[in-house]
Amino acid sequence: MTIQGDVPGSLPQSYASLGALFAEMSEFLPADRISREAGTCWAYGMDNSRLHHPADIVAFPLDHDEVQRVVRCARRHSVPITTRGRGTGTAGGSVPLQGGVVVVMDRMNQVLEFRPEDRLIRVQTGIINADVQRIVSAAGFFWPPDPTSNALCTVGGNLGCNAAGPHAVKYGTTRENVLGLKAVAGTGATVIAGTETTKGVVGYDLTRLLIGAEGTLGIITEATLKLTPLPDARCLIRAFYPNMHAASQAVSRLMNQPATPAAIEFIDGNALNLMRSHSTNPDALAIPESAGALLMIEVDGMSESLANQTDLIQAAARGDTDEQAALISLEIARTPQEMALLWSARKALSPTLRLVAPKKINEDVVVPVSRVPLLITALDEIALRHSVKIVNFGHAGNGNIHVNLLIDPDDPAQSAAADDALAEVFSTVLALKGTLSGEHGIGAVKREYIRDEIAPETLLLMHGIKHVFDPDGIMNPGKKIPDAIAPPAKPGKSK
Amino acid sequence: MTIQGDVPGSLPQSYASLGALFAEMSEFLPADRISREAGTCWAYGMDNSRLHHPADIVAFPLDHDEVQRVVRCARRHSVPITTRGRGTGTAGGSVPLQGGVVVVMDRMNQVLEFRPEDRLIRVQTGIINADVQRIVSAAGFFWPPDPTSNALCTVGGNLGCNAAGPHAVKYGTTRENVLGLKAVAGTGATVIAGTETTKGVVGYDLTRLLIGAEGTLGIITEATLKLTPLPDARCLIRAFYPNMHAASQAVSRLMNQPATPAAIEFIDGNALNLMRSHSTNPDALAIPESAGALLMIEVDGMSESLANQTDLIQAAARGDTDEQAALISLEIARTPQEMALLWSARKALSPTLRLVAPKKINEDVVVPVSRVPLLITALDEIALRHSVKIVNFGHAGNGNIHVNLLIDPDDPAQSAAADDALAEVFSTVLALKGTLSGEHGIGAVKREYIRDEIAPETLLLMHGIKHVFDPDGIMNPGKKIPDAIAPPAKPGKSK
Repeated sequence: MTIQGDVPGSLPQSYASLGALFAEMSEFLPADRISREAGTCWAYGMDNSRLHHPADIVAFPLDHDEVQRVVRCARRHSVPITTRGRGTGTAGGSVPLQGGVVVVMDRMNQVLEFRPEDRLIRVQTGIINADVQRIVSAAGFFWPPDPTSNALCTVGGNLGCNAAGPHAVKYGTTRENVLGLKAVAGTGATVIAGTETTKGVVGYDLTRLLIGAEGTLGIITEATLKLTPLPDARCLIRAFYPNMHAASQAVSRLMNQPATPAAIEFIDGNALNLMRSHSTNPDALAIPESAGALLMIEVDGMSESLANQTDLIQAAARGDTDEQAALISLEIARTPQEMALLWSARKALSPTLRLVAPKKINEDVVVPVSRVPLLITALDEIALRHSVKIVNFGHAGNGNIHVNLLIDPDDPAQSAAADDALAEVFSTVLALKGTLSGEHGIGAVKREYIRDEIAPETLLLMHGIKHVFDPDGIMNPGKKIPDAIAPPAKPGKSK
Repeated sequence: MTIQGDVPGSLPQSYASLGALFAEMSEFLPADRISREAGTCWAYGMDNSRLHHPADIVAFPLDHDEVQRVVRCARRHSVPITTRGRGTGTAGGSVPLQGGVVVVMDRMNQVLEFRPEDRLIRVQTGIINADVQRIVSAAGFFWPPDPTSNALCTVGGNLGCNAAGPHAVKYGTTRENVLGLKAVAGTGATVIAGTETTKGVVGYDLTRLLIGAEGTLGIITEATLKLTPLPDARCLIRAFYPNMHAASQAVSRLMNQPATPAAIEFIDGNALNLMRSHSTNPDALAIPESAGALLMIEVDGMSESLANQTDLIQAAARGDTDEQAALISLEIARTPQEMALLWSARKALSPTLRLVAPKKINEDVVVPVSRVPLLITALDEIALRHSVKIVNFGHAGNGNIHVNLLIDPDDPAQSAAADDALAEVFSTVLALKGTLSGEHGIGAVKREYIRDEIAPETLLLMHGIKHVFDPDGIMNPGKKIPDAIAPPAKPGKSK
C-alpha cells in the first residue's frame, strides 16, 4: 500500500501508541468486544474486494456512546478508523488499508423505535437490511433499498454507499429513503441530522452529506428510515430482444409512461451466451436462439390495478410497431412459482461468471438511460480492442450497468489489458455524462479515477468538508475522495 | 438591524469601496443590468416577509459566468450578496439585511437542455416553476415541486428553501427531485454537483447540501431537474370530520395503505368558522354545521386504475367502523369543474385570513403525522393562554402545519403576546419531535430559534461547512443558521 506522504489525510504507517490506545479502549469495552489478536485482526482486514490489510485493533461497540468514545480515543492517538458492517462492499471501502482500528458495527443491530403510524423505523445501523424488511413487513411496509446482498448487508453499509439495488427506479435510492440520522464525526462530535418528518429545512442537509460518504466523515450510528407501504400484488415480465439497442429503446419507452416498473433489469448478449454455454440444462433457461438482450421487468402495485399497470408496461416493452419493438418474445409470470422460474435464468448468471473468471473485475457505472445503447456499443469496441471479454448486466431503469471484465488479474498481460480497458470504459462513461459508480462506492479501488469526474474546484470544497468533519484525517483514510495533490502518473500510463 | 460584532459572518455596515465595486461590475454588466439607483435598490429590498432593507447595488446576471464574476468582485470588496428569485419567500431570506449586492436571478430563465427520454430538464434557476411545468407537460411530464406560489416563484427559490408544496406526500420534496446542479460558492469557485442519472455516489452530496441552504453557501445557477410522467387522471375527495382528532386518524389510515394520495390538505375548525362567518355566500361553501375539520384529498394515477385507487382512499378516509371514522360527510369531484368547485372552499380561506389580520404571522412547522392531533390540541391551549387567535391549515400527509397567528404586529400588546405564543408553539413542536420549518425556510425571522432544534456540536459542523464555502461570510449574512455565539437573552424572556 503506497501512502502519499505530504497530503492531508495521510498518517504514519506505524502507530507508536497502539498499546496505550488499546488500554484506554479496554476501559469501556469488555474483553469480548475488543481484540488485538492476530487472527481476528486478519479476518477483519478484508471485504468483498480483493484488497486486504490487517487491522491493529478490532472493536465491537454496542451503542452510539461507545462509538463516540472509540473515535475520541483513536483521535487522541492519531490512529485511523475503518468502519465496517458485514464487508459485502466490492470497492475496498471497509478494508483498513492503513491499519489502525476497525469498528465492527454488526452488534449494533437494535430497533430503537418502530412507528408504522409515522411510516418510520429508527434503527442502529449494524442491523441487517433483511431484518428491517422482516420487521416492517409485519405491519405492511417495506424499506425500498434492497441491494442483492440484502440478506447479509447492514443498513449502515447501505447508507455509507447510498446502495439501493433494483427498486431504485421506482422508489428512489437510499438517500431518498432516510429521514434522519445520528453519527459520530471524525472530531468525536455527535451529529444529529435530519428529522422524523418528510419535510424539513432547518440547518444544512447533513443527512445526505453523510449518506454516501463511505465512513470518511464519520460513523453513522443510528438512522431513521422512511418506510413505504407494501404493494399487495406483483408480477414479472421477461422480454427478449435481438440486441441491446432494441432493449434500450424499450427501456426508454418504459420510462416514458406513468406506470413506472418496480425494477427493470437487463442482461446483454455476451451474458446470454455465457448462460447458454455454461448451463447444465440450457433448455430450461428457454433463451431464444436469436436473443441478444433480455429485460426482466417487475411490476408491483395494488391487486385491483395490477392488471392495468401490467398492460401498460407490456405495451411499452413491446413497442407500438414491429419496427420499433423488434421484440422476440415476452412472457409474464404471475405466481411466485412462475416468477422464481423466470428469475432462475438471471440468477444462473453470477455463478457462471464466477466459474469463467473467479477474479473478474466488476464495475458499476451509470449513464443517462437513453445513452445505454451507446455505452454498450462502446464497451463491445473496447473489449475487441484490448482482447478483454466484457459482460454487462444491471439496473437499466437507472442506467446503472454492471460492467464485468472477465480477466485473471494474476496474469500480468491480462491485468494490464484490463487496466487500459477500464480507463477507456470510465472515459466513455464520462463522455456520455454518466458517473463512475452508482452504488458500489469508490472505496480504494476507484479513488484515483474520481479526479476525472469531479472538477478541481469542486474537489477542493469536498476536501474542505472532509477537514471540518475529520481534521486529523483518521476516518477511513485513503478512500472515497482522492488526495488534494494527484500522485505522479505511472510511466507508460495514459492517465 | 443588530449586527453581532465578533462572530464569523458579520460584516461592517458600510462598505467603503461600493463605488469601486460598482465600477468593476459595470465592466461586464451593461447599464441595463446593474443599478445603484435608490428606487431600484429600495424595490429589491423586500420579499413576502415584513422585513425590508435596501440594496446598495442590484445586479441582473444572465449566466453562470456573470454570477461568478459578481461573487468574485463582491468578495474582493467584502461586500455581502443576497440572491433572490421573485421574492415570494416569507422568512426574509432574500432581504439584504446588511445591504450590499442583490443578485436578481429572474433574467436567468433559460432552458438549457430538455431530454424527456432521460426524464430530465436542465434549466437556469431564475426560471419560473410554472414555466417548467408548461414546457415539460407538453412531453407528458411534470416536476413534482409546486408550491402554492408556483405561477410566480423561481426554481432557484424552490431549491433554496427545499420548497415543494402539497404533492410532496406522494412525490417527495425538492431535494428528491433534483439530480444535479451548478453553483458559485462564496469563495467564487464553480461547484458542479450531482449527476444526470438517478443513481450516483461519486464524491460528497453537494447537491442536497446546497438545496435548502437559502443562498448562504453559494448561488445555484443551473439545475438538472428529475421529471415524473404526468398521471392521466385525477379526482378530489372532500371529507368533513367533527374535529382534528378524527381527521388526523383518517390521515394516519390514509398513510397506512399502498394508495398514497397525491395531496392531503387539511383545514382546522377555527379556519372553517372563519370561512363560514366571512363568506358572502356561506351556503355555497356547503360546510356542515357540525364540521370541525376538513380534509381535501387529491388522487392521481392512470385512468384505468383511478377508480380502484379512489375506492381504497375513500375507504381509508371513512374508516372501518363508525366509531373510528366519525366522518360527517364525504364528496368526490371527478371533473375539473367539480374539483374547482370543491377547491373554492379551501381557496376562500387565504383572502379571509388577510381580511381578518392583514399582518398575520404564518408559521410552517412540521410534526410526525401521528402527532398532528397533539399539536392541534396544544395550539388551542396556547391560543387560549395568550389570547391569540390561531388558525391552522396545511399539508397533513407530511405533518406540515401552517400555523397562523391572527394578530396586529403594530399593536405592542398583541405583538408581545404573539412572541410568547410563538415561543411555546416552537417548543411544543420540538417536544413532539417535529421541525420548525417544512419549506418556508429559516431566513432571518426564525434564525435564533434554530438553536433550540440543532444541537451545539452539530451547529458547529454547519458553521464549519459555511466557512468552507463562504470564508468571508458574504453570502446572505444573518440568515439560515444562527451565529456561533448566541446573542444575550432579552430581559423578561424565557428564551
